[in-house]
Amino acid sequence: MKVGILNITGYAGCELARILYRHPEVELTSVTGRSAAGQKLAEVFPHLSALDLTISPELEGDLDLVFSALPHKASAEAVIPALEQGMKVVDISADFRLKSADEYEEWYGVPHQDPSYLEEAVYGLAELHREEIKSARLVANPGCYPTSAILALAPAVENGLIEPDIIVDSKSGVSGGGRTLNMTNHFSEVNENVFAYALSGHRHLPEINQELSALTGEAPAVTFLTHLVPMTRGILSSCYAKLRPGEWLDGDNGVQRIRELYQDYYSSHPFVEVTPAPPQTKHTLGNNLCLIYPTVDSRTGRLIVISCLDNLVKGAAGQAVQNMNLMCGFRESESLDALAVYP
Amino acid sequence: MKVGILNITGYAGCELARILYRHPEVELTSVTGRSAAGQKLAEVFPHLSALDLTISPELEGDLDLVFSALPHKASAEAVIPALEQGMKVVDISADFRLKSADEYEEWYGVPHQDPSYLEEAVYGLAELHREEIKSARLVANPGCYPTSAILALAPAVENGLIEPDIIVDSKSGVSGGGRTLNMTNHFSEVNENVFAYALSGHRHLPEINQELSALTGEAPAVTFLTHLVPMTRGILSSCYAKLRPGEWLDGDNGVQRIRELYQDYYSSHPFVEVTPAPPQTKHTLGNNLCLIYPTVDSRTGRLIVISCLDNLVKGAAGQAVQNMNLMCGFRESESLDALAVYP
Amino acid sequence: MKVGILNITGYAGCELARILYRHPEVELTSVTGRSAAGQKLAEVFPHLSALDLTISPELEGDLDLVFSALPHKASAEAVIPALEQGMKVVDISADFRLKSADEYEEWYGVPHQDPSYLEEAVYGLAELHREEIKSARLVANPGCYPTSAILALAPAVENGLIEPDIIVDSKSGVSGGGRTLNMTNHFSEVNENVFAYALSGHRHLPEINQELSALTGEAPAVTFLTHLVPMTRGILSSCYAKLRPGEWLDGDNGVQRIRELYQDYYSSHPFVEVTPAPPQTKHTLGNNLCLIYPTVDSRTGRLIVISCLDNLVKGAAGQAVQNMNLMCGFRESESLDALAVYP
Amino acid sequence: MKVGILNITGYAGCELARILYRHPEVELTSVTGRSAAGQKLAEVFPHLSALDLTISPELEGDLDLVFSALPHKASAEAVIPALEQGMKVVDISADFRLKSADEYEEWYGVPHQDPSYLEEAVYGLAELHREEIKSARLVANPGCYPTSAILALAPAVENGLIEPDIIVDSKSGVSGGGRTLNMTNHFSEVNENVFAYALSGHRHLPEINQELSALTGEAPAVTFLTHLVPMTRGILSSCYAKLRPGEWLDGDNGVQRIRELYQDYYSSHPFVEVTPAPPQTKHTLGNNLCLIYPTVDSRTGRLIVISCLDNLVKGAAGQAVQNMNLMCGFRESESLDALAVYP
Repeated sequence: MKVGILNITGYAGCELARILYRHPEVELTSVTGRSAAGQKLAEVFPHLSALDLTISPELEGDLDLVFSALPHKASAEAVIPALEQGMKVVDISADFRLKSADEYEEWYGVPHQDPSYLEEAVYGLAELHREEIKSARLVANPGCYPTSAILALAPAVENGLIEPDIIVDSKSGVSGGGRTLNMTNHFSEVNENVFAYALSGHRHLPEINQELSALTGEAPAVTFLTHLVPMTRGILSSCYAKLRPGEWLDGDNGVQRIRELYQDYYSSHPFVEVTPAPPQTKHTLGNNLCLIYPTVDSRTGRLIVISCLDNLVKGAAGQAVQNMNLMCGFRESESLDALAVYP
Repeated sequence: MKVGILNITGYAGCELARILYRHPEVELTSVTGRSAAGQKLAEVFPHLSALDLTISPELEGDLDLVFSALPHKASAEAVIPALEQGMKVVDISADFRLKSADEYEEWYGVPHQDPSYLEEAVYGLAELHREEIKSARLVANPGCYPTSAILALAPAVENGLIEPDIIVDSKSGVSGGGRTLNMTNHFSEVNENVFAYALSGHRHLPEINQELSALTGEAPAVTFLTHLVPMTRGILSSCYAKLRPGEWLDGDNGVQRIRELYQDYYSSHPFVEVTPAPPQTKHTLGNNLCLIYPTVDSRTGRLIVISCLDNLVKGAAGQAVQNMNLMCGFRESESLDALAVYP
Repeated sequence: MKVGILNITGYAGCELARILYRHPEVELTSVTGRSAAGQKLAEVFPHLSALDLTISPELEGDLDLVFSALPHKASAEAVIPALEQGMKVVDISADFRLKSADEYEEWYGVPHQDPSYLEEAVYGLAELHREEIKSARLVANPGCYPTSAILALAPAVENGLIEPDIIVDSKSGVSGGGRTLNMTNHFSEVNENVFAYALSGHRHLPEINQELSALTGEAPAVTFLTHLVPMTRGILSSCYAKLRPGEWLDGDNGVQRIRELYQDYYSSHPFVEVTPAPPQTKHTLGNNLCLIYPTVDSRTGRLIVISCLDNLVKGAAGQAVQNMNLMCGFRESESLDALAVYP
Repeated sequence: MKVGILNITGYAGCELARILYRHPEVELTSVTGRSAAGQKLAEVFPHLSALDLTISPELEGDLDLVFSALPHKASAEAVIPALEQGMKVVDISADFRLKSADEYEEWYGVPHQDPSYLEEAVYGLAELHREEIKSARLVANPGCYPTSAILALAPAVENGLIEPDIIVDSKSGVSGGGRTLNMTNHFSEVNENVFAYALSGHRHLPEINQELSALTGEAPAVTFLTHLVPMTRGILSSCYAKLRPGEWLDGDNGVQRIRELYQDYYSSHPFVEVTPAPPQTKHTLGNNLCLIYPTVDSRTGRLIVISCLDNLVKGAAGQAVQNMNLMCGFRESESLDALAVYP
């Protein structure tokens, strides 16, 4: 199968290339990039020198599927023509994640290029939408933060464990901010430093709201706060909500029931692991797992769920390949079964 | 004035030496350490080679004031005799922070050495107890996390802004875990890694509860969760609580009122700064400031307060010197006025 | 093929498990560890939870090949019985690297367990000894530093480019020091810090001398200095030696000839890449490559060669699997062809 | 005394402000910056909020002394008019370091603005030129790398210990590259990474050559290679040269003699410390010390000298204040006597 990558020169794009390199069904034949067009891929990314490709300004040749790692807006502009030429598309940008064109415009500051695609697009979280993804031609790959937050909360929300009043406190490595230069990825500024950002609202909030609301028809009030942490890869989300009265509030038994509920919820999903101890981002470095640990603060009756993942794999390129696998009838975990690189 | 340090070989102890080195009123004459007893200070800590001192197993000579950087239990054992010999004491351990001997035993797993001192001891958070500290002979230096959490929340709690239902999500650098070796300070284990720990309850929680309860007489329900972040120094706490109905929930005006309330609350305190933008731990590296930023999540009506500090300075040794300055009638900020080391 | 790992609880051991997990010819059936004996592998290493193995105190069952990741001395003690039972052995410790039992005793402080094996053992640097490795039953896996230094210098030494007076200045990440706790892997001590260590002589020096001497029969004078750098994985060696008079000292042409000589030297070796620009350790993270960049300081007529690799892969576990592949007739790069994890 | 800082918005500039804040003789009255002109200093650098200054496009008011932290070329353009108005100048840029205008043009790619100042300017390494600095009106502050290399080598070169054939292998933190954005200070690119750069020659080489040559009248052949290390502050230089035959090559006695020679050489200099053990950059964090450790590789007869310092203090702003202190008759270590921030 011939595959292309739009904007291979960002971190999600070159991570796609790394993962696809091992995929037996995929031939990567076209990669694009703006400022680097004309250069050999190995000049820009020496670690990809095994791939003999030249970066072109636009997709070239017949392709069966295209990944877009372009920024929002530019992605829709490039992806819609590809769809219309009959290619399947996995879009890593935010352009097709929100069902509401109004919400899109509110958060991204531009009108949507073509809202008619918003209904067709499937939100590419296989753990919630696996069957729809299988038959989709346009999959909107979830944001890195929402992947961690939604997977942490879905079992609790769908089963009515918690009050619809949720706090998600997320900590991210710096690569989530991309390869473009700015002061919040300058080494000397972010090394030995932790800070909260986007306090007036992060663009990933409406995704979280949309997906959690769809589970019950009720919209929870979510406070979502993001923090930058001095490491390259990894997201850890700590989620808090009051447990509703009931069997969950029963000391260790309650915790055990919650854990079993989580395990059942994800039992058929190869990339979510409910862990026996609080997980660490390092246990996901370079692989496609989302690790989830639910517990209860018995003093206050609050559910606490910790989730973590590698923002460039399950939070971007790995999840995109997982979606491709489902769309194309390959094994869901094809080329995604590497263990984490530890330590 | 002659001063001693019990257990200079930990991070709080040697940070005390660094700060006192510049103090014009203090002569550091006795420093103790167990495994390193008999060694020159410069052999253990080359950066302290300007201090010509030998580490002794116990305090030596007449001292006016003693800092204890011993672990809990050992600290009480060493400090009580010093008090009885007429020395003033600033205890950085947890041994005299809690007013209730039962709570102490519950959280620290040992009965308190001598509960009669718990009443006398003053909780050494100058921003809440400055006058008591001035006349104290035994000051219990607050924990690093509680310093950040209590300072972030005190104005809101005392003024009735928020429901008594609070989440404190704290992120700490590794030095908070001390100089003793264990897997959670092994570089290869914690570098490029973030994780939550102490999910069943961190020992600093009862301090937070005690001090916040004392502000209003009402005990809030506090969920307190700690995280380890790959950096050496710094704590950042993100605090969340529902605003009560009222003038605070008035869009930008409400936020402005809250900010003014915070500024007023701390106007006479040299080491708390209410910042105009979200603060970063790097802006406190090596100095005694606690930076605080209150804001409102307008979508959910929640107060969010971000606070940060250097866990070894305002969270330990700097605050201890601030307490000594108050106890001894020196300028509160004597030897503590260095700007942060940036970047 | 049934394979065992002695001492899986160190970093080289668990990295072996990560790599072997993907090896189609290998079944990992027995793993040992002392302090963790009796525990499930997943309890000690959550990232290996896909491997359903229990750590035992000694090897169990019939095995075709054993990897030893034990410390020196303990390794020889465990490995010799395995050899005598007919198992093949790849020993990651230093016990069989040196041909001289006297040198071994001088550098490791203990007499060698059984010097008769020193002659038989093959130094497992496939780029120099591939054919011998293919027929060996005991392969001594090279040290991480020597791998980088020898590969950087072999083409120059063997072809007589340089005076036999060489400086190797190496920089290593912290994982090279292992998983055992000590002050030089305490995060707060090594983070934001660089220092030289082992100034009176590092144990890896005799390996470098032995292998470089064998290339020409002449022993060069090598100054080898090691430095610790605040990162988890990676070694970079900067090697310096005077060029002999001749065609190499011919400006850009000379540099070009040297580069071609290096490329020819390694043309049949899949894991050495002569790079067109100075390499970075990050370009080898998690994979088995050694990147080499030779150039000339035209002002002084010195050859400079930069080499880098991942100390746990090409410097330990990856090279061990490469050796196993050769010893067992598998494709040399089987399970070792992953691209580097970047960024 | 009224002092100004040209280009406070770089790291050397704001580090100057941090140090001068504590200087009892200095009033900082004018600070410049191009892109940030018109902003309050506290907006750009929250950690400097104690300084109530506005950034202006050019120096304002009468000043006694000006520090320039401008890039080369721009610095000469701004500094020469200040000199002509009678101000003293400490120039942190490279514009007045080299005595030869030709060398300047060769390395910096532009003709020198006014070579007549090159003779007058004093190279501001107090350990070599203290008396000249005292009477200078224009001091060229040394580069960070040359400070570490020259101080490491001067005693050996001046006393004829070594052959004039020297290798300096330097490792620097990222802040040495400044605050301007580029890929070699992008966190995700340099974190967990080590690499050599400027292999065809670093601009700091001619300074090293100039100063070492001046000691004996003979120009040594220096190979100088720089490496980037994932930390914010700190330079460590490892220097290698063959010892000349003689008393220095006498085992431990020789090493002892060399150490005493170094100690004597620097006995009157407050900011050079000859250490009893290999030094670490962390032992200089935030202070003005250069730590030096000479030893001998007895196997090859090579002198090895390790030196380290904080590139923003002794390597830039601290040394500049040291020079100001000498130029103005203040105590040499005024405001520079802080101990290192450890850990």
